[in-house]
Amino acid sequence: MKVGTVSYRSVWRDGDGIRIIDQTRLPYEFRTVSLRTCEDAARAINSMQVRGAPLIGAVAAYGVALALYQDPSDQVLSAAIDGLKSTRPTAVNLHWALNRMLEHIRPLEPTARVHAAWIEAERIADEDTLLNRSIGSHGLSLIRETASRTETVNVLTHCNAGWLATVDYGTALAPVYLAHDQGIPVHVWVDETRPRSQGFLTAWELAAHGVPYTLIADNAGGHLMQRGQVDLVIVGADRVTRDGHVCNKIGTYLKALAAKQNGVPFFAAVPGPTIDWHINDAFSDIPIEERSADEMRFVQGRDNSGRVTKVAVGIEDMPVANPGFDITPAELVTGIITESGVIPASPEGLASIRSKAS
Amino acid sequence: MKVGTVSYRSVWRDGDGIRIIDQTRLPYEFRTVSLRTCEDAARAINSMQVRGAPLIGAVAAYGVALALYQDPSDQVLSAAIDGLKSTRPTAVNLHWALNRMLEHIRPLEPTARVHAAWIEAERIADEDTLLNRSIGSHGLSLIRETASRTETVNVLTHCNAGWLATVDYGTALAPVYLAHDQGIPVHVWVDETRPRSQGFLTAWELAAHGVPYTLIADNAGGHLMQRGQVDLVIVGADRVTRDGHVCNKIGTYLKALAAKQNGVPFFAAVPGPTIDWHINDAFSDIPIEERSADEMRFVQGRDNSGRVTKVAVGIEDMPVANPGFDITPAELVTGIITESGVIPASPEGLASIRSKAS
Repeated sequence: MKVGTVSYRSVWRDGDGIRIIDQTRLPYEFRTVSLRTCEDAARAINSMQVRGAPLIGAVAAYGVALALYQDPSDQVLSAAIDGLKSTRPTAVNLHWALNRMLEHIRPLEPTARVHAAWIEAERIADEDTLLNRSIGSHGLSLIRETASRTETVNVLTHCNAGWLATVDYGTALAPVYLAHDQGIPVHVWVDETRPRSQGFLTAWELAAHGVPYTLIADNAGGHLMQRGQVDLVIVGADRVTRDGHVCNKIGTYLKALAAKQNGVPFFAAVPGPTIDWHINDAFSDIPIEERSADEMRFVQGRDNSGRVTKVAVGIEDMPVANPGFDITPAELVTGIITESGVIPASPEGLASIRSKAS
Repeated sequence: MKVGTVSYRSVWRDGDGIRIIDQTRLPYEFRTVSLRTCEDAARAINSMQVRGAPLIGAVAAYGVALALYQDPSDQVLSAAIDGLKSTRPTAVNLHWALNRMLEHIRPLEPTARVHAAWIEAERIADEDTLLNRSIGSHGLSLIRETASRTETVNVLTHCNAGWLATVDYGTALAPVYLAHDQGIPVHVWVDETRPRSQGFLTAWELAAHGVPYTLIADNAGGHLMQRGQVDLVIVGADRVTRDGHVCNKIGTYLKALAAKQNGVPFFAAVPGPTIDWHINDAFSDIPIEERSADEMRFVQGRDNSGRVTKVAVGIEDMPVANPGFDITPAELVTGIITESGVIPASPEGLASIRSKAS
């Protein structure tokens, strides 16, 4: 998507390395960073310089290529896959991308691996872009249908499932971008998404593309739905189970409850690789990452002189719990927007796209 | 309650004026401020140096005494009442306290008014303390009952309805303080409560009194309830209608939805003066205050050198919506903890205490 007049992806090849947008600097500074080793890629994922399930998958795939570039042996291949997998336990398409790389690369002669790994990583990135465009076009029909009944379509989203969270277009925001580009009046309620405030990323990319938005506290969405000010909720997902349960950024579940109570359709927009076909019980089997207490204890912003800095909030060393994700039960989900169409959040719905998506 | 070894109230008489704790400085600095005019009192309410429905009522009552101290005429009395009423549209017991002052003072000769106003304001403050102790003892039985089934009673609360929000004890936290003082193991999940982060005040006062707590993002409560980590939700309220609907800090509604879905009892703790006996339709007739966008755009904290400062977060001048309150429908409320007992959140429940509370 556009930043000013320039088109960007969130990761791209750059000589012998790759280049990413450092998302920990956004929305304060737009800065790109070069990653030249597999460790660089793992660190970028771990520190959330890159984030969002699809983008993490793509960067990890490139990470394998970077590792093999230094040494194409079996040992290095295994170590790279293992190291990259351990960066984020809940990200199912991180595992999907790495398994795909492993299956593709392992059978090859070491001398053929580097080139093949670059090609395959590039393919994963390109495919993500295409998947998201398809998600966008299916979600667009939901927005278009709503637009026939209202002046402006008000979409509420949580966290950032925009192009910054993918290679391009985004998942939850792909329908919004397509609607906006086609002249359908659309406005986005952007949840701040504490503690990391990924809503600022959503605000930044919507503003950069010219889509009207309003930032709200995570506390406000229920009230807005009660007042009829939300037409659709669209979120991304870290993982969707074959039963239709949606694991996404902490707080998603609360918005789904409010949507259900107020008759607001609630959709998760997910590419096939984000669907976990293996898990049995979403509520006991999905590990919920407990993130650093410092995410609650420090807030980044600009000081008086415009310098980006952090302030300590609350009480020094206050006890903090910081679960990164929650699970929205399928019964609260109106549908899943996939590249194959909008499907019910049910075992049958998911099964209907299994052959295409896996 | 205690700050270190010293017992405090949140407002007290100090010579010809009153003294408050400046809550905009907390939890970073504990500083008391002298208010010597009615305008001082109105400004303290408006700027949220004092906050919380019961405390606002008490400070406003003292504000009337401060006005009359300068001039005990009818005109000054009316102007003081009107000026103080306009500071916070949703605070029903601000109006209650001011009407009580007006009815008590107006029939008196001007020369008798100053003394009477001080006495009456002091009485309002003392009564609040007694009401809260009663709320505490009724809520204590809920906690004690839960304690018989679990090792530690985990209470989730939103915003600050502790002693800082009242004259003493608090409303939602009164049962917690009483339980803790009686040796019942109790732990509080404290919602951060963006955008003003009143959760830091709750954390501060719980820490000062030695009650175990854990700060969480507003997004986390639903997940914790899903995992069985919350035994009770207790919140305060800005206003409860005679039908049992609860108007409280924005985000309360989302927690009530999650509590209902997960079978967690959800209580609002409110003194009689917080009950609005007049409103017909909570959802259309309660004005919801739209607060300043700057509450979302700036975050207060300590910089590297320990200085309290503000940083600008997100995008400069980003569009913001900032509703201050929401309404939790009675059907989501397990009960209302009042000074007269725990009652159902229904017209019948409320009617049962009307003669005592009004």
